[in-house]
Amino acid sequence: MASSETALSFSRLGREIASPVIVDLMARALANSDLLSLAAGFTDNVALPRGLVGRFAAELTQGGLDDEPLQYGQNQGRSRLRELSCQYLAAQPGECAEAFDPAAMFISNGSQQALYLAVQALCDPGDIVLVEEPSYFVCLEMLRGLGLRPIGIPCEGDGAIQADGLAELLRELDSAGERSKVKAIYLVSYFCNPSSRSLSLGEKRAIARVLLDVGYEIPVIEDAAYRELYFDAPHPAPSILSMPEFAPFPKLYLGTYTKPFATGLKIGYGCCTHSEWLEKILCIKGHQDFGSAHFSQAIIERVLDAGLFQDHLAFIQKHYAEKAFVLDHALREGGLREVGWKWHQPAGGLIFWLRAPEGSDLRMESVFCKGCIEQGVLYVPGELCSASGGLWHCARLSSGALPPNKLREAAGRFVAQAGVLAQSSGSSGS
Amino acid sequence: MASSETALSFSRLGREIASPVIVDLMARALANSDLLSLAAGFTDNVALPRGLVGRFAAELTQGGLDDEPLQYGQNQGRSRLRELSCQYLAAQPGECAEAFDPAAMFISNGSQQALYLAVQALCDPGDIVLVEEPSYFVCLEMLRGLGLRPIGIPCEGDGAIQADGLAELLRELDSAGERSKVKAIYLVSYFCNPSSRSLSLGEKRAIARVLLDVGYEIPVIEDAAYRELYFDAPHPAPSILSMPEFAPFPKLYLGTYTKPFATGLKIGYGCCTHSEWLEKILCIKGHQDFGSAHFSQAIIERVLDAGLFQDHLAFIQKHYAEKAFVLDHALREGGLREVGWKWHQPAGGLIFWLRAPEGSDLRMESVFCKGCIEQGVLYVPGELCSASGGLWHCARLSSGALPPNKLREAAGRFVAQAGVLAQSSGSSGS
Repeated sequence: MASSETALSFSRLGREIASPVIVDLMARALANSDLLSLAAGFTDNVALPRGLVGRFAAELTQGGLDDEPLQYGQNQGRSRLRELSCQYLAAQPGECAEAFDPAAMFISNGSQQALYLAVQALCDPGDIVLVEEPSYFVCLEMLRGLGLRPIGIPCEGDGAIQADGLAELLRELDSAGERSKVKAIYLVSYFCNPSSRSLSLGEKRAIARVLLDVGYEIPVIEDAAYRELYFDAPHPAPSILSMPEFAPFPKLYLGTYTKPFATGLKIGYGCCTHSEWLEKILCIKGHQDFGSAHFSQAIIERVLDAGLFQDHLAFIQKHYAEKAFVLDHALREGGLREVGWKWHQPAGGLIFWLRAPEGSDLRMESVFCKGCIEQGVLYVPGELCSASGGLWHCARLSSGALPPNKLREAAGRFVAQAGVLAQSSGSSGS
Repeated sequence: MASSETALSFSRLGREIASPVIVDLMARALANSDLLSLAAGFTDNVALPRGLVGRFAAELTQGGLDDEPLQYGQNQGRSRLRELSCQYLAAQPGECAEAFDPAAMFISNGSQQALYLAVQALCDPGDIVLVEEPSYFVCLEMLRGLGLRPIGIPCEGDGAIQADGLAELLRELDSAGERSKVKAIYLVSYFCNPSSRSLSLGEKRAIARVLLDVGYEIPVIEDAAYRELYFDAPHPAPSILSMPEFAPFPKLYLGTYTKPFATGLKIGYGCCTHSEWLEKILCIKGHQDFGSAHFSQAIIERVLDAGLFQDHLAFIQKHYAEKAFVLDHALREGGLREVGWKWHQPAGGLIFWLRAPEGSDLRMESVFCKGCIEQGVLYVPGELCSASGGLWHCARLSSGALPPNKLREAAGRFVAQAGVLAQSSGSSGS
């Protein structure tokens, strides 16, 4: 069909867009069960809330309700769901009761759509968004797809932001006449995908201080998609919405019920403190779909209203802690530390961020990556998580989807390739 | 908050976007039950498939499935749902078996998102999309929101396209040097929202012939959102995908499971015959949400697979036929024809398109519209459905949402205002 079809002239967006790697990773993981995927950030099928969804779907389809969940809902999302979500968030460590306002919240198709809408409202092609190095690769791809320039903030090897580096970067952008192009800073602050780090209160304060010092009162987008997935205890730092240091900034907090509840219901949210920005976001959503799946929203609302979200969280927190332990243990047992690889054991989330010895090449086209695919294990090359195209020696692994025995097997295959890499580096260096 | 908040510089999109009227209409209809809304194109709560959704939601949450509906799905949508949808479509009157290809289909958040993605891939600000006069007002708003210029094709009063007028318009655009800006033609071809007309085979052939004659091999977007909601018999014309006259054109067929099944599941689809266009659409969807609610998709797939979609359609077709009869009867009985108003009795869909005597003003700010709101009845002013800002004397009414007694009451209030309008026109003319 493609060979004989009419040539079409596409929009700038259409011409410049490339197929998202996430789509390819999801397709591969879903298509081939021999291939063990440590790449896709899926949740674990056995940790999905079948019972809760089944129970409340049944209740919701009995009829006789004040509002009908199989009917259209509001563009902004169900008001009771927004109320309950704000109550839940306000009860998190360090949060102010009034920081999360149901009127400032909107429900979206996963937090991804919330991010997309927020960026559409702010950025034109050529504009800049500051991101951590590494940052969430789906966000980087999305920004590039819209013709934007993600610029990485100088970070330590483990992903910790260098406050001085940020200040220097901002001054450089100033000198280069780019200040007006810098439209937002995007922070993945809880069990970061991919660094697995969380931003401490001190780090967040430092970021606010630097931005103010250098005069960048730009929108701050905090992506907290993994916040609920802590293992032992919630991360103690409050969100930017509760921090007085961020009072001068337009703020957007992104959260979701995909990872901590059911990815298949596809419900996320944003909470935007800037009324005009929120208004633009809602206008764009009105054009894109005028409301997210109302039935999915109603199911989650019922779960929250019945006080059962916390119980489910307690279950999956333990579950994902065990899986992270299995992956960490398998990587250690296999001897990955011994060949010079480093990583933090995550305290939450689904993601491991591995750093091979400097100079290693783990990119998509590398011998290492091809070796992994041949041996039947997939990972996300660190390069994809880098705004600057660096981080060639890093890899993102997910402990979320595979069952423990397959996690061990996948880790074994991965470590074996790391051994081959170490030998070839050693022999080429000798 | 707004008064003291940091001034933000928005994107071109953010600056130019206006709040969609659909959002306002939905909010009003949901908020105030004294106000009888003939405006919002809601489906009828009592016609929603509670039993089917409850039954299959229960089945799907039993576990032990090959794929897990509470997990993420594919960006393009469930393959079995696409297969079954294509089989259903291929069985419609006049369709070719191979016209609907599951590989060319993608699942979206209602057909609205499919349209948005398709337009994002094709159009830059300033570009032109040709539309019927009247056309679907949510599409017009969306196009304008993206900085595009919808241009109305010359049509008869009832909405029938004038083939000669189309040819003349295309030549004028040529002369004005605008040919390269014309990126698509958008047709609402089955029980059109708002004209309630369907395009005959002859009309469709004429459109294809004119486009080819004047050398506009532009993408053709056919919006068939109401196709399934026929009253007595399906509309006999096949879609553009099956018509040899449209073979040279890139084509997109839009359909949905919102109107004919459950608006609250928010599942629609597009079927795109142009592989490169489809690829761009999927890339953008990958960035926007990387897949629509998987659980909603799985429910609809089960309904189709069990052969129960047809039964549900048979029920709602009869239901909506009765409601259209009630509204039509109430408008006639009230004497609306006698004061010079015209309309076709719809043969399907949820919409009536009323034309007051030429020169009447039914716009949002008109005395008539304010009178209707005061009397507690809402409609969509025809002006909103006009690309050129004309059609002041027209009104879109929906028979979908209100129960029969309220439909009668709403019609009574509306006709009473038409009487007032007729008197004031008569007295001002005397």
